[in-house]
Amino acid sequence: MASGKPASGEDSLIARYFRPLATDPGAFGLDDDAAALKPDGNDIVVTTDAIVEGVHFLPDDPADTVARKALRVNLSDLAAKGAVPAGFVLTLALRHADEAWLKPFAAALGEDAAQFACPLLGGDTVSTPGPLMVSVTAFGRVPSGKMVHRSGAKAGDRVMVTGTIGDAALGLAILRGGKVLAAASDSTAREALIGRYRVPQPRVAMANIVRDHASASMDVSDGLAGDLAKLCGVSGVSAVIEMPSVPLSDAARDLVSRGIVGLEAVIAGGDDYEILCTLPEDRVKTFLQSAQDAGIAVCSIGTVVAGNAIPRFIDGQGREIALERLSYSHF
Amino acid sequence: MASGKPASGEDSLIARYFRPLATDPGAFGLDDDAAALKPDGNDIVVTTDAIVEGVHFLPDDPADTVARKALRVNLSDLAAKGAVPAGFVLTLALRHADEAWLKPFAAALGEDAAQFACPLLGGDTVSTPGPLMVSVTAFGRVPSGKMVHRSGAKAGDRVMVTGTIGDAALGLAILRGGKVLAAASDSTAREALIGRYRVPQPRVAMANIVRDHASASMDVSDGLAGDLAKLCGVSGVSAVIEMPSVPLSDAARDLVSRGIVGLEAVIAGGDDYEILCTLPEDRVKTFLQSAQDAGIAVCSIGTVVAGNAIPRFIDGQGREIALERLSYSHF
Repeated sequence: MASGKPASGEDSLIARYFRPLATDPGAFGLDDDAAALKPDGNDIVVTTDAIVEGVHFLPDDPADTVARKALRVNLSDLAAKGAVPAGFVLTLALRHADEAWLKPFAAALGEDAAQFACPLLGGDTVSTPGPLMVSVTAFGRVPSGKMVHRSGAKAGDRVMVTGTIGDAALGLAILRGGKVLAAASDSTAREALIGRYRVPQPRVAMANIVRDHASASMDVSDGLAGDLAKLCGVSGVSAVIEMPSVPLSDAARDLVSRGIVGLEAVIAGGDDYEILCTLPEDRVKTFLQSAQDAGIAVCSIGTVVAGNAIPRFIDGQGREIALERLSYSHF
Repeated sequence: MASGKPASGEDSLIARYFRPLATDPGAFGLDDDAAALKPDGNDIVVTTDAIVEGVHFLPDDPADTVARKALRVNLSDLAAKGAVPAGFVLTLALRHADEAWLKPFAAALGEDAAQFACPLLGGDTVSTPGPLMVSVTAFGRVPSGKMVHRSGAKAGDRVMVTGTIGDAALGLAILRGGKVLAAASDSTAREALIGRYRVPQPRVAMANIVRDHASASMDVSDGLAGDLAKLCGVSGVSAVIEMPSVPLSDAARDLVSRGIVGLEAVIAGGDDYEILCTLPEDRVKTFLQSAQDAGIAVCSIGTVVAGNAIPRFIDGQGREIALERLSYSHF
């Protein structure tokens, strides 16, 4: 602890590593106790997601990927709600102030903040005797009342998903070793899956497209099956998903087709951070074209149906796939 | 983990304990991934503060006081910035879902949210193998550009503080045992000091008064001496504080006068969550009257002076008090 000096270790850390990220005038250079978001007529969408060492990332994960994941899981939420990023605040719980860790952490956070136009507005750095934890609250803007909810899906809507599903869960399985690691002999495929676990790709470019077309939307964080069940539950509908239409990467398809992992590992594994949304049939064509223009792959994977049953997953022969579990739960 | 059911343990926890707190329409009943703050022409002030078991509260502290402290340390920040509470989001990192702990936690959080008109807007519940952590991001509203900064203090301004200083640090010392516990023989005084540590009293009623009159303001969380040094540093000024004017509770004054604790324990201990602000001389009378009308005790403790020296604390004989340390630092 500094003796007779106002700049404590904590203040010095913030100044050195995080002030350069506070580029928004509303952050007041992190010299204040609070930030200010200016009104511009839009609603401010607020989302908060924390990642914990040993739960959402592994103790060996590099500092830069931890930073990116912490911000990106929140950017993914904003995109799924149709909101354009406006900034974020950060709470960092650290065991000790390890500069060799903080430097790449802050650098990567700054790169992502710039890339996604989501500046750091403020934060809190606290010590903890326990695992590292990074909690982010992110803000986005959306025209008043236009946030896309989980609750708007209607029978007859198409179910769409961005990117590919299951890669992150398989990447985690590889990092944990065992049969998936043993089976994933191709190092390029292995690294790709691990990369998907460590550094999600938030579909920020989809925000306005989702906002303009989707009847309901959320991001897939706890597993496609479970998250779809949540969306359907809140919307008061059910769904039928054609499993062969669910987009898998080559690496994931290979592991499934060889029987190394079951379909549940893919559709109930979580950490995907893809957008799952529903569209009225007459919006599908425009949605697909807009997504293509934005450079984001999207797939139609099924249909919303009436009822309150858990969504069903159907194989290529029209048979229902029995699922032991739908998603990841913390408790 | 639930088998074949969409309601995971986590979702069920949120529904049972936290949904009743989500009274604001922008919280969407916690059924969504995000909340929405409506624009009303005011700036939205954002502050974030986390509390960690073993650092900001003790493992034996009751669940209800942990909840209140987590929210109140943020309400204290908003009040010091001149902002009226608008809502908050919560990240709760738990080792396990202990309902005997969660029930009083959520009940107390709900009481405070209602008392301070600051509804729960959303949150994230995560598991951790480590200490309990409660991270809150709170929102307040202030007329555009009217947030009160740390940086506006001018030479000649008066330095004001609400409530009493040092009680919480002494309460913590009592909880930790040792000489302070041994010396604090009066159980009423002991409980009062402990209560000040566990449950801060955010000066929410001062928000508009601070906004209308203060040239600079912050809340005292890391110790009066250090926090004043921060305010002066950002404002480019110094200050002289008359130690006999610093408001102490009877219990604190007793411990100091008997030599059980030094002045540093009081003015560099932290956890006060009182408002420290500066006022132009011509605002003092109105400020004092408004605070009195609001039922909040405020004291004039010194004067802002030119220069960039660390603020000086002067005893009753006009001699400078040497301080070994100014504040609490996490690192």
